[in-house]
Amino acid sequence: MFKTIEWKNNSVVMIDQRLLPTQEVYRKYKDFLDVAEAIREMVVRGAPAIGVAAAMGIALGALDIKTKNKKGFLKTFENVCKVIASTRPTAVNLFWAVERMKGVVRKNPKLNIEELKQRLVQEAKTIHKEDILINKQMGRNGSKFIKSGDTILTHCNAGALATAGYGTALGVIRAAVEDGKKIKVFADETRPFLQGSRLTAWELMKDNIDVTLITDNMAGYMMKKGLIDLVIVGADRIAANGDTANKIGTYSVAVLAKEHKIPFYVAAPLSTIDLKIKNGDKIPIEERDTREVTHIPAPASIKQGKNIQIAPHNIKVKNPAFDVTPNKFITAIITEKGIAKKSFEKSLKGLFGK
Amino acid sequence: MFKTIEWKNNSVVMIDQRLLPTQEVYRKYKDFLDVAEAIREMVVRGAPAIGVAAAMGIALGALDIKTKNKKGFLKTFENVCKVIASTRPTAVNLFWAVERMKGVVRKNPKLNIEELKQRLVQEAKTIHKEDILINKQMGRNGSKFIKSGDTILTHCNAGALATAGYGTALGVIRAAVEDGKKIKVFADETRPFLQGSRLTAWELMKDNIDVTLITDNMAGYMMKKGLIDLVIVGADRIAANGDTANKIGTYSVAVLAKEHKIPFYVAAPLSTIDLKIKNGDKIPIEERDTREVTHIPAPASIKQGKNIQIAPHNIKVKNPAFDVTPNKFITAIITEKGIAKKSFEKSLKGLFGK
Repeated sequence: MFKTIEWKNNSVVMIDQRLLPTQEVYRKYKDFLDVAEAIREMVVRGAPAIGVAAAMGIALGALDIKTKNKKGFLKTFENVCKVIASTRPTAVNLFWAVERMKGVVRKNPKLNIEELKQRLVQEAKTIHKEDILINKQMGRNGSKFIKSGDTILTHCNAGALATAGYGTALGVIRAAVEDGKKIKVFADETRPFLQGSRLTAWELMKDNIDVTLITDNMAGYMMKKGLIDLVIVGADRIAANGDTANKIGTYSVAVLAKEHKIPFYVAAPLSTIDLKIKNGDKIPIEERDTREVTHIPAPASIKQGKNIQIAPHNIKVKNPAFDVTPNKFITAIITEKGIAKKSFEKSLKGLFGK
Repeated sequence: MFKTIEWKNNSVVMIDQRLLPTQEVYRKYKDFLDVAEAIREMVVRGAPAIGVAAAMGIALGALDIKTKNKKGFLKTFENVCKVIASTRPTAVNLFWAVERMKGVVRKNPKLNIEELKQRLVQEAKTIHKEDILINKQMGRNGSKFIKSGDTILTHCNAGALATAGYGTALGVIRAAVEDGKKIKVFADETRPFLQGSRLTAWELMKDNIDVTLITDNMAGYMMKKGLIDLVIVGADRIAANGDTANKIGTYSVAVLAKEHKIPFYVAAPLSTIDLKIKNGDKIPIEERDTREVTHIPAPASIKQGKNIQIAPHNIKVKNPAFDVTPNKFITAIITEKGIAKKSFEKSLKGLFGK
């Protein structure tokens, strides 16, 4: 089995998700700036995996701080955190991980620089380990929504590749399979980055889970034909009222699901829930490079920049990487602490023990 | 300006739409079997353009019949028609054109073989010429639905490239521009064949019409942001009750338009309306090669079969090329004979003078 991300001898090793499914290449990062670039360039993606990468990047950056002066260390550490936090705006797990790493420093004012560095490495490893356990618990909580014989539509990749392992939406699917349920999955290819065709299809095939690939614009057709029993997606940020930012196209799937009276589930850890944000309108939506839309990277030649042009030269392009699905379209939010239902505001707070 | 299809010295010349937008290559066909293959392989596509290509293909096939025996000629002519009719199942203009060419033979029982051949060539040329005039009339009829300042979403390519020229949905847009209205167009890229990014974006840019490219799954986001004022699409077959088969993804756009209370127009000539088919359930939907979904053709190398693989080897794929939008999602159908509105059954019949 592949490993999405790993801490190994004071370096971060990640599978290069841009090259899948045709090449399984692992990249080793020793400098936190390169981890930041890897997050930005989507070598690693998926909200929980970005959180883990951020934590590990900060640990790398901390290890590399040269000064022996504690005040100087703290100042540089702040700057490391700033660089990591500036890589991508939408997935809140990034900021959650940065805050958690900052918390290590804040809560241990008496430790010396060397001790702090070791604690930070430890914390990054812990976040990694916890993420897998959280996903497995989420899977156990969500499996009950899936019946044997169901066909599930998913969008983007909320799988092992989007997390430290196991996955959120695909974690629920894995748990259902482990419970002995016979299920089928339809994967939206998820333009422009093709996380569905390149990643979800690939990791489900590796696990021998029955998966069929469709283009994003076929989801409505499949629902109308009665071929989809439920939808499960992941999330990049969930507002206090349950509005959910996820990969672009999720909103369209949710509208289609409502039209066809198909339940629509979101699976995400508490670290994806941002109680500080009242509703989805306040979630910042990343606009990415237009070349993601106008060109298809030839996987074997990403480094050489050889891309296939599929649109006219100089065409105007919009490329919002996420959209927000209003809470009214969501049947339930599956977390490691339990299920949130309407009204989500109260229900989500409850999961945090508030 | 480019020419989609032309009859030239007893051959059919077509722009190879698989190579756009990076290469503008014209192909010359002297054998009707090659025209059939060009329709199948989508060198030419779009319901009205397929109709013209079918007529010209049949004319080519007729010219090539060797026998001097009238009965033999008629038998071979039937077979030519059969081959052309078997190329693609959904767009009814193909069958309409075949019937019209057959009509030339049926209505002129006294003509000799040479005279029939010339009449068939003439009929194919007439169908070509009429199609442009029909589109211009459709444009004039539809322009009234567009206000200056509007932003229009379109899906697939229902433009000059989908017809003998001018276009159906894009014809309405062109007419609005000619009427001095300031408009903007959003083009869905339209996976898997990318008619939106490769063809619609290209031909609108050629005409200096303001066009922005989005992936199919961004349409909902744009509507929710209030950026779309109306939707106009073409059609491959319209049933007697107004249910409309069009490029896969059209149905999803229609559901999204309804959710956002955005008018949804279909622009199509009477030759696309199939009164013999009661409703959309009866329209045959073509399933195309799965490689359209799993691979991106490198335009420069289509002949060499060099494609970029974007999905795992052996992944299961569905590739319906069309879907059906039920009449309840359609605000109006714009034809060259006028506008059909609810109830469509009565209104469409009326356009045929029935």
